[in-house]
Amino acid sequence: MRKMVIGFLGGGNIGGGVYTLLNSFAKEIAARDGLQIQVKKILVRDLGKKRNVELPEEKLTIYPEEVVEDPEIELVAEFMGGEQPAADYMLRALKNGKTVVTANKVALSLNWYQLRKAAEENHAGLYYEASVCGAIPIIALLQSSLEANRVDYLMGIINGTTNYILTRMYESGQSYENALAEAQELGLAEPDPSMDVRGMDAAYKLSILSTLAFHTRVPVPQIYCEGITEITAEDVACGKEMGYVLKLLAIGKQEGKTVQVRVHPTFLPKDHPMSQISGSFNAVYLYGHACKEMVLQGRGAGDLPTASAVAADILEAARAEEPSYPSFVNREDVDPEMIFTDNWNTKFFVRLSVTDAPGVLAKVTGLMAGEGISISAMQQKDPTPDGRAKLFFVTHDAPEKAMRRVVKALNSDICKVESVIRVET
Amino acid sequence: MRKMVIGFLGGGNIGGGVYTLLNSFAKEIAARDGLQIQVKKILVRDLGKKRNVELPEEKLTIYPEEVVEDPEIELVAEFMGGEQPAADYMLRALKNGKTVVTANKVALSLNWYQLRKAAEENHAGLYYEASVCGAIPIIALLQSSLEANRVDYLMGIINGTTNYILTRMYESGQSYENALAEAQELGLAEPDPSMDVRGMDAAYKLSILSTLAFHTRVPVPQIYCEGITEITAEDVACGKEMGYVLKLLAIGKQEGKTVQVRVHPTFLPKDHPMSQISGSFNAVYLYGHACKEMVLQGRGAGDLPTASAVAADILEAARAEEPSYPSFVNREDVDPEMIFTDNWNTKFFVRLSVTDAPGVLAKVTGLMAGEGISISAMQQKDPTPDGRAKLFFVTHDAPEKAMRRVVKALNSDICKVESVIRVET
Repeated sequence: MRKMVIGFLGGGNIGGGVYTLLNSFAKEIAARDGLQIQVKKILVRDLGKKRNVELPEEKLTIYPEEVVEDPEIELVAEFMGGEQPAADYMLRALKNGKTVVTANKVALSLNWYQLRKAAEENHAGLYYEASVCGAIPIIALLQSSLEANRVDYLMGIINGTTNYILTRMYESGQSYENALAEAQELGLAEPDPSMDVRGMDAAYKLSILSTLAFHTRVPVPQIYCEGITEITAEDVACGKEMGYVLKLLAIGKQEGKTVQVRVHPTFLPKDHPMSQISGSFNAVYLYGHACKEMVLQGRGAGDLPTASAVAADILEAARAEEPSYPSFVNREDVDPEMIFTDNWNTKFFVRLSVTDAPGVLAKVTGLMAGEGISISAMQQKDPTPDGRAKLFFVTHDAPEKAMRRVVKALNSDICKVESVIRVET
Repeated sequence: MRKMVIGFLGGGNIGGGVYTLLNSFAKEIAARDGLQIQVKKILVRDLGKKRNVELPEEKLTIYPEEVVEDPEIELVAEFMGGEQPAADYMLRALKNGKTVVTANKVALSLNWYQLRKAAEENHAGLYYEASVCGAIPIIALLQSSLEANRVDYLMGIINGTTNYILTRMYESGQSYENALAEAQELGLAEPDPSMDVRGMDAAYKLSILSTLAFHTRVPVPQIYCEGITEITAEDVACGKEMGYVLKLLAIGKQEGKTVQVRVHPTFLPKDHPMSQISGSFNAVYLYGHACKEMVLQGRGAGDLPTASAVAADILEAARAEEPSYPSFVNREDVDPEMIFTDNWNTKFFVRLSVTDAPGVLAKVTGLMAGEGISISAMQQKDPTPDGRAKLFFVTHDAPEKAMRRVVKALNSDICKVESVIRVET
């Protein structure tokens, strides 16, 4: 029986979940893997805090060195969240030759060249399945299962908070503000929800997923990021009328050396496989040249699903004879051969408020035609008492930048662009 | 650069696909893994056969010993299909210390105790991601990612042929025979489709999946297996009227030491995540106590998706310092502590043709009540000119055996049971 002594950085709900899982499966782990895992120290912020999962008092510490410097500890599992001090503690652990298992998308996506380098130089492992989409094995899929594939694109609903809000807006027609308040009441949104609703949470995750999928470093600042805070009940309703469901999508596409990575609200046809992913579920849809279409769907967040992924990584690390780390993230900067484009092609949903006068529609379509953009479907609502008509339409594929020029030119006294939402099919 | 010499058992479309993938990713494999994979010999049935993927003539052989006995060959990849001689060749390779990668559900599910024993005794690996659901990483999920989970149930659409047929019957209202003929024309069904349409293909796969999920040997004969050959257009249409979609499901459930494993046509509510899986797609839905609900969906068959999984296994085996094999399949027979029940509870859809006379409905409901089975919804069609009325209903949960007694008692001059289809929700 091999015994492995490990330490935790973080004693919150995920840590408690990992602790419970490892204990409750101790017998099975011993029988299947010949392994005995012992948690020696758990770094916490406050020794006296009341915890949902009780952790043995003698294991708790407020001194990080008791985890990252203890020579007996072989592996450090981190679930503190946030970039610092988590990244610093992980680096210290790796430099001491300890394998690191992390659930921290922020610390990983912002520091993974350094983390990976420290892992390699000190012959330690770096595992991070739990950093993206909780229990969904998307990291294993991209890192191992699809190794003999060229992944052409991936499309993720990788933020449960925004998916819950948009699902509720779609189902009940309520406003963004009300749906957010509902999510907060249910504990599905933080008191300060900005990381989620502004799309940053999805961007960190997309950085990790697209780096793995495209085998090239995709730093967070390369990602175009637009949240859902400006989405109105009217947008959702008009899209619904045209057969679309609104999702916050994280999209990565690769064509030759050109990569596009973007997070933004997106209309999908209601029979698209990703339109069915509702509430707080997560899903990643991808296309590889050999595997073809694939969708992985599950609980992308939550303490126990995340703990499940951390525990699996700890066991994998314990079984491995050689430590594993992502071998291809071997440069800090972006590969100079890669082109990150911000002028992708999509369809667009556009909602306008126009003066109900002859010639307005001609002006709109004329401006579009001037940029080579054609309209595939259009609807007009009866004018309101103030003489403004509501108009919304979906275009054929058009370059992002051409659309931006049109929007700029459209905005005038007689025409107000109320929203522009990208459409994927 | 580590060089690994490998051999193939089978030179058909999957073998051709693996050969192409390994060659086209040779540069990436060298850069990422420091590996050079060389295919030395390929066992074929007919040297002169025209192949979709051309394979170098000098590598082809009709002598299995040139693959399984060659000391230079470290790993043997098998995609011959069928139990024998594939299982025999794999055993010989393992006994010679060669790692085996297989895409063969039949040979594996019928022989995996022996294969696993030979792997362990000869310090060789046994990899089989491609044996179930092509490129979908369901084996990796069950074997590694969910190790700290108790999997309570799984539900798979794991046969693309039958899913295509049932999807077409649902969409177009056509008969089983016509939908099968259509599938055969498209190459989605074999000229002799019995392995697929009788459910055996799904049963082999379920044996592998449930053995992994429940950590206990589930031999194929323990699986209740009912195909789709008796399904009529009327069954599909009546179910559709009641809001159900018909799928051939492979179901495994575990409760304590009791396991149920069954393959049969099943009605699912049309908003169930598995109802959306249409055409030749495969999907597995499962519930683990920590990971919660998860769905993996993709191309479950096809040459390139299967080749993608084989290639990933070859690369994983090549990277591994220690060979890996499923460690818990350590008995040939069934664990005597396990109970395989054939008296599971489900809802039932029942379609009757009854004499349109007073008292018939009272007889039906009376018989059901006598077994404690209650009806949740019922519809009756106007009588046909011959004075028979069509009646169909869905029950609440009821034990399988009670339902069988009711069916037996119902069948009489005044009442004919035309179909009984299980319903999952």
